[in-house]
Amino acid sequence: MPSIDVVFFDVLGTVVDWRGSISAEVEKFLQTCHMSNVDARALADAWVGRYDNAAEKVRNGSRPYVTLDVLNRETLEACIAEFGLEPSRIPNRELEELNRAWHRLKPWPDAVEGITKLKERFVVAPLSDGHTRMLVDLAKFAELPWDTVLGADVFKAYKPTPEVYIGACNLLDVAPEKAILVAAHDYDLAGARQCGLKTALVHRRNAADPSKASNIPSSGSWDFSANDLGELAKVLGQNLLR
Amino acid sequence: MPSIDVVFFDVLGTVVDWRGSISAEVEKFLQTCHMSNVDARALADAWVGRYDNAAEKVRNGSRPYVTLDVLNRETLEACIAEFGLEPSRIPNRELEELNRAWHRLKPWPDAVEGITKLKERFVVAPLSDGHTRMLVDLAKFAELPWDTVLGADVFKAYKPTPEVYIGACNLLDVAPEKAILVAAHDYDLAGARQCGLKTALVHRRNAADPSKASNIPSSGSWDFSANDLGELAKVLGQNLLR
Repeated sequence: MPSIDVVFFDVLGTVVDWRGSISAEVEKFLQTCHMSNVDARALADAWVGRYDNAAEKVRNGSRPYVTLDVLNRETLEACIAEFGLEPSRIPNRELEELNRAWHRLKPWPDAVEGITKLKERFVVAPLSDGHTRMLVDLAKFAELPWDTVLGADVFKAYKPTPEVYIGACNLLDVAPEKAILVAAHDYDLAGARQCGLKTALVHRRNAADPSKASNIPSSGSWDFSANDLGELAKVLGQNLLR
Repeated sequence: MPSIDVVFFDVLGTVVDWRGSISAEVEKFLQTCHMSNVDARALADAWVGRYDNAAEKVRNGSRPYVTLDVLNRETLEACIAEFGLEPSRIPNRELEELNRAWHRLKPWPDAVEGITKLKERFVVAPLSDGHTRMLVDLAKFAELPWDTVLGADVFKAYKPTPEVYIGACNLLDVAPEKAILVAAHDYDLAGARQCGLKTALVHRRNAADPSKASNIPSSGSWDFSANDLGELAKVLGQNLLR
């Protein structure tokens, strides 16, 4: 039975329903701006879909680290233009309000209870591309009971850059093999495994990331898997030592 | 009425009773090691008393940043030697157990309720010389409901080095004038003020820091003051906008 000290969680898609939340906020935005003829779901998916390419420029060093607030604002304006709208004709206040939607994403229904259960035995913390303030706002909004919140701005890098996984382990003074990453995406779990962490897949069938070229189901070769965080708390509780 | 977004707290002395807690743990240690003839209170004060000089070497750059776990272990062995004991004859396990006492310091009786109250309106976070893991362990032990825990190892510096206050404000995406430091020690509040933060003194009459040459009462020129964190929550609630 492996002994685990810290459970890290991917957040976007794994703990919160970003696509559903962003899509609802885009709809509100389009109404406020009298552009209800635009397909909110399509615009939301196009916006989220630009995320990975934007982060990739930071990952590959072609631009210095900037927070998701900065990347999201840039990709939002690009999307709006792509949909035939003119970002400069939309009040900055409305664009900023929509960009802040990433600070108030709704948790999946099982998230709070699952994390609360795991917190009894382990240190629980997000390991996310979100920056510290975004994750703190999210946690307050969604009542996620993290033990600490260390955002991507602490490491100035985006996953799956190894510095993020290793840096988080260092700050929590835990050897990678005594930490586990919980995530809904294979590329993230692969990044964690490469750094020596244990891995747990959560199946989030509606969380397929439109920014990834292919949304094939997980190959399923991870240390643990579950259908939601409540089930995961049980699985880890039965299979791990504190 | 100033508008405040984030309330930072010094921890050692302000939120937790380090002298009382360390003194009780030293007594236990002395019993286990059959050295009950040593004065526990005096040894504890000597240990805590070496803290500031040890941190100063990091502050002034004469050694690179190391965590409080490292500094405390060094000063513990020096103290033990000073008291006529031989650290190398004490099992490492006992020394390590005593050193970990800094991860389980008791909160002042008003701490949890005061922080919980302030958390309703503000982001609440420690701003401490403790490293992230130490502060996370402390928060779990004492049930401190922080929104995030960013330790001195994130900034690789000890207060009152400006990078700590500025770095914490940056990670919480807050302008210094919209943040406030709550602390029991003048030098810490002075450091925060120098960086543009608002300041709140909590009178902890038993928290006088034996590592400071003089324990004169606060000069009282801070933005706010209170006798405990419950009173502070009321004072800030009446005088600050979210």
